[in-house]
Amino acid sequence: MSLKLDSVSTLLNEPDAAPVHSVTLFVALVSACIVIGHLLQKTRWMNQSVTALAFGLCTATVIILTTNGKISDILLFDEDLFFICLLPPIIFNAGFQVKKKQFFQNFIIINLFGVVGTLISFGIISMGSAQLFMKFGLTFWDQGDFLALGAILSATDTVCTLQVLNQEDTPLLYSLVFGEGVVNDATSIVLFNAIQKFSVHITPDTVMQFTGSFLYLFSLSTLLGIAVGLMSAYIIRKLYFGRHSTDREVALMILMAYLSYVMADLFQLSGILTVFFCGIVMSHYTWHNITESSRVTTKHTFATLSFISETFIFLYVGMDALDMEKWKIAKGSPGTSVAVSSTLLGLVLVGRAASVISVSFLSNLANDSPIDKIGFKQQVGIFGLALFADLNLLNDKVMLLIQVTIWWAGLMRGAVSVALAYNKFTSSGHTQRPKNAIMITSTITIVLFSNVVFGLLTKPLVRLMLQPREQSSEISSPKSSSALLPLLANGQDLASELDSVGGGISIRRPSSLTMLITKPTSTVHYYWRKFDNAVMRPIFGGGGEESPPNDILH
Amino acid sequence: MSLKLDSVSTLLNEPDAAPVHSVTLFVALVSACIVIGHLLQKTRWMNQSVTALAFGLCTATVIILTTNGKISDILLFDEDLFFICLLPPIIFNAGFQVKKKQFFQNFIIINLFGVVGTLISFGIISMGSAQLFMKFGLTFWDQGDFLALGAILSATDTVCTLQVLNQEDTPLLYSLVFGEGVVNDATSIVLFNAIQKFSVHITPDTVMQFTGSFLYLFSLSTLLGIAVGLMSAYIIRKLYFGRHSTDREVALMILMAYLSYVMADLFQLSGILTVFFCGIVMSHYTWHNITESSRVTTKHTFATLSFISETFIFLYVGMDALDMEKWKIAKGSPGTSVAVSSTLLGLVLVGRAASVISVSFLSNLANDSPIDKIGFKQQVGIFGLALFADLNLLNDKVMLLIQVTIWWAGLMRGAVSVALAYNKFTSSGHTQRPKNAIMITSTITIVLFSNVVFGLLTKPLVRLMLQPREQSSEISSPKSSSALLPLLANGQDLASELDSVGGGISIRRPSSLTMLITKPTSTVHYYWRKFDNAVMRPIFGGGGEESPPNDILH
Repeated sequence: MSLKLDSVSTLLNEPDAAPVHSVTLFVALVSACIVIGHLLQKTRWMNQSVTALAFGLCTATVIILTTNGKISDILLFDEDLFFICLLPPIIFNAGFQVKKKQFFQNFIIINLFGVVGTLISFGIISMGSAQLFMKFGLTFWDQGDFLALGAILSATDTVCTLQVLNQEDTPLLYSLVFGEGVVNDATSIVLFNAIQKFSVHITPDTVMQFTGSFLYLFSLSTLLGIAVGLMSAYIIRKLYFGRHSTDREVALMILMAYLSYVMADLFQLSGILTVFFCGIVMSHYTWHNITESSRVTTKHTFATLSFISETFIFLYVGMDALDMEKWKIAKGSPGTSVAVSSTLLGLVLVGRAASVISVSFLSNLANDSPIDKIGFKQQVGIFGLALFADLNLLNDKVMLLIQVTIWWAGLMRGAVSVALAYNKFTSSGHTQRPKNAIMITSTITIVLFSNVVFGLLTKPLVRLMLQPREQSSEISSPKSSSALLPLLANGQDLASELDSVGGGISIRRPSSLTMLITKPTSTVHYYWRKFDNAVMRPIFGGGGEESPPNDILH
Repeated sequence: MSLKLDSVSTLLNEPDAAPVHSVTLFVALVSACIVIGHLLQKTRWMNQSVTALAFGLCTATVIILTTNGKISDILLFDEDLFFICLLPPIIFNAGFQVKKKQFFQNFIIINLFGVVGTLISFGIISMGSAQLFMKFGLTFWDQGDFLALGAILSATDTVCTLQVLNQEDTPLLYSLVFGEGVVNDATSIVLFNAIQKFSVHITPDTVMQFTGSFLYLFSLSTLLGIAVGLMSAYIIRKLYFGRHSTDREVALMILMAYLSYVMADLFQLSGILTVFFCGIVMSHYTWHNITESSRVTTKHTFATLSFISETFIFLYVGMDALDMEKWKIAKGSPGTSVAVSSTLLGLVLVGRAASVISVSFLSNLANDSPIDKIGFKQQVGIFGLALFADLNLLNDKVMLLIQVTIWWAGLMRGAVSVALAYNKFTSSGHTQRPKNAIMITSTITIVLFSNVVFGLLTKPLVRLMLQPREQSSEISSPKSSSALLPLLANGQDLASELDSVGGGISIRRPSSLTMLITKPTSTVHYYWRKFDNAVMRPIFGGGGEESPPNDILH
């Protein structure tokens, strides 16, 4: 997506005094959300995202009631503000704080879910909506609209689930849901942009072009992120040798992280992937070259910026939901609106279920082939191991619960969907065409419904899942609960198995090339470690074996 | 100033691709400036501000040469971007990091320089330009223009001097130059806004109204800042009791600091004063209620944001200087331009000298009156003591050097002047009238000249001043160098004298009401301490006796 900065602040583009009102309002509301969110943290149902959404809805109601709907432009969601200011800190922080070891150990399963799962979901929503709407006699939309719709509604929002999961208690589940969320966001945005570039008629040729463009975006964006991250590490390592200045270090890290994002955009790449990988590289190298106080500062600053952005986004989506303009336009055909919204919601549920089941099936298929039985087992990581390989060890009910949780985490739709919908179906936030207004209102309906209904249920559900020792004894056999432990509780016992092969202190050299085939992840990991220690660290810096930001400081 | 957010990013308001270019360009340039600034730190002449200015000028030249002056809109200075995004972090950080004890001990002398000095400078520049321009036969401008010009050119920029002074080595000199800079900024902005509100004809009535409005803005803005700061302290103290979350704490502090600024603007108060006092209150109370890692994070985050803003501003002013539009319009009358610029530059120098001399005279006058000889001595602080009371102890040459340094620190004009000039003489950055274009180009000329010429000399000059032990033996008697020590080196020996009376651990009760008259600062300080310990700290929190952010952490 080429950033259109000319409306960086449609939000603020009010005549005269109104903008100060709206900035003050938003800053005050975000502060209030944070305080209320903290107070409600201990309750059974509410979480930060739902609180912010509810806050946004209430505020919008008050504004509409007090002004008779006059200045409802304040409520308008601005996709550019979202893509330029709010999304980058969230994604960068995701890369910066991710537990790299677990992320890369589960790289394949995360990508299976993130890329393949998203593509499946995209296909089902696109084709399903095209078929069903035609059946309903709704023929306003063309093929391009349906394809865009598929991409828009494939972007999941895992923030809600992640806020409930605890990274310390369930690192594996957390990193899987988290990794999938980031890859999914990137995939759907890249997908959306790739679709926008091509004509609406699908031919084998365009499919090829599309795939090419997709792979090109993915690889180049990643490389750019890595390059900028390494550059920051190199600069800080070489320049600041013996003469550290915390302010300069922190400033340089923030600026170069953002630079990677805008550069990606300048080269028409995917900023989200670039800034994610820039974050990973920065936490692996750059972060080790700076002073102790810079480390504490960057870790918390990035987390705080991400936190503010998240809260702001939910608040913003909540307020946008009551922007009357589009509802009035869509109101012309209430039946259609309801039909479209519920159909799409159904397709989202089906698409997500299909993608979870398909990925499971893919894993199992590979798992059953005799060639790389063990290899693939380790390849798909502990997650695949517990989930799919050891099916016979798991009680059916627990198995179902796990699958439901993964399905669940990917059910919610969020700001990425709203932003993409605005990008496709409006021009700078406004539309007069009912067929477009319906698409916007349907997206908002799905976002609100999934976040409020599923969001409120997430905390109890995840809590239920996270107490397998107590709970599982009631719903399953003791045997299964022990099998659940590695997934839900800590997973270090199984993870250590991989460690002893591919990493850790006792690095064992793979004996032959067959190793590379049978144990690709471990082997890649082994060679990466060697390369990292021999070549990368002397140039770009980097501390001891295992020192991600999240482990050292607290 | 009422924020006009509708052009928050005129900078970005380019059609299509250009904005991404400019954002990328600016982020890359700021990064480069920081790196180059670090490399040049040890050199004799250059400092961060001059580097950024030079960078901006070079970049602008390259852009103009490569594009034949087509997209020179990128270079346009945006006053709203400045007032909304860049200034608040700088001023907040100023309040947050100021050494409160020294600031309030020297409160009167700082205000004498900051308020009275600025008013004198304002008067001289306004009246001088009105008189001289009339003599030159330049009659385009009215009284309102001259008054505005006085306010615009009274706003000093002490960043350049502060970057050279070292807060640890010369805390007193630093806090005086620093405190004067902030008060001066606030005074000139408040002055500018007050002038804008009144008609161009001066009558005794408008002078009264003006004074009233000035005092109203000053006091209410300060109170608002204190109120928001206390609110943040109270919220964090009450809510987070026993359950701290670093991200929430940091987010809340950032948001509430900014909230104070936009609220001030909403109520048409002076955001700069509000956010400054909010910073002071936050560092005195709020900062003590948060976790250790939050403390490190907030301290460095605020400093970093301020640092980035400062660098960006100098870069921006440098680039703006070569925006061709206004030069072309002003070129119509080159003689006038040169005459105006040099006249104004002369008036700036004279105004500053007059204000320094007048304030010195005022202090001496008060000092000679028999009633509160000692009282006033302590009132004007160590600064006044060394500078004015002990004149006979000081060698004339050294005395002159000190006065020159103070004069010097206030000579440079910066972004506040440019922003105010744009506000007064353009409409959203553009003007077609030569008389306005000349004002803009003259302001830019003065800013560039003072920063580049004086800026390059600052480092050698201050270095010269800061080595009185070595240098003074050459230029003055040993006696005078010992008298200089408290001012230039540490000042703790004299400061401790005040401590034992008004603060510190051995609080001695003032014996009678005469104390309040003869030693107002110490007495106020004593009662404030009592009140702070008995009432404020139990409610709003706050640590030990002396624990400003800058002392604890490093």
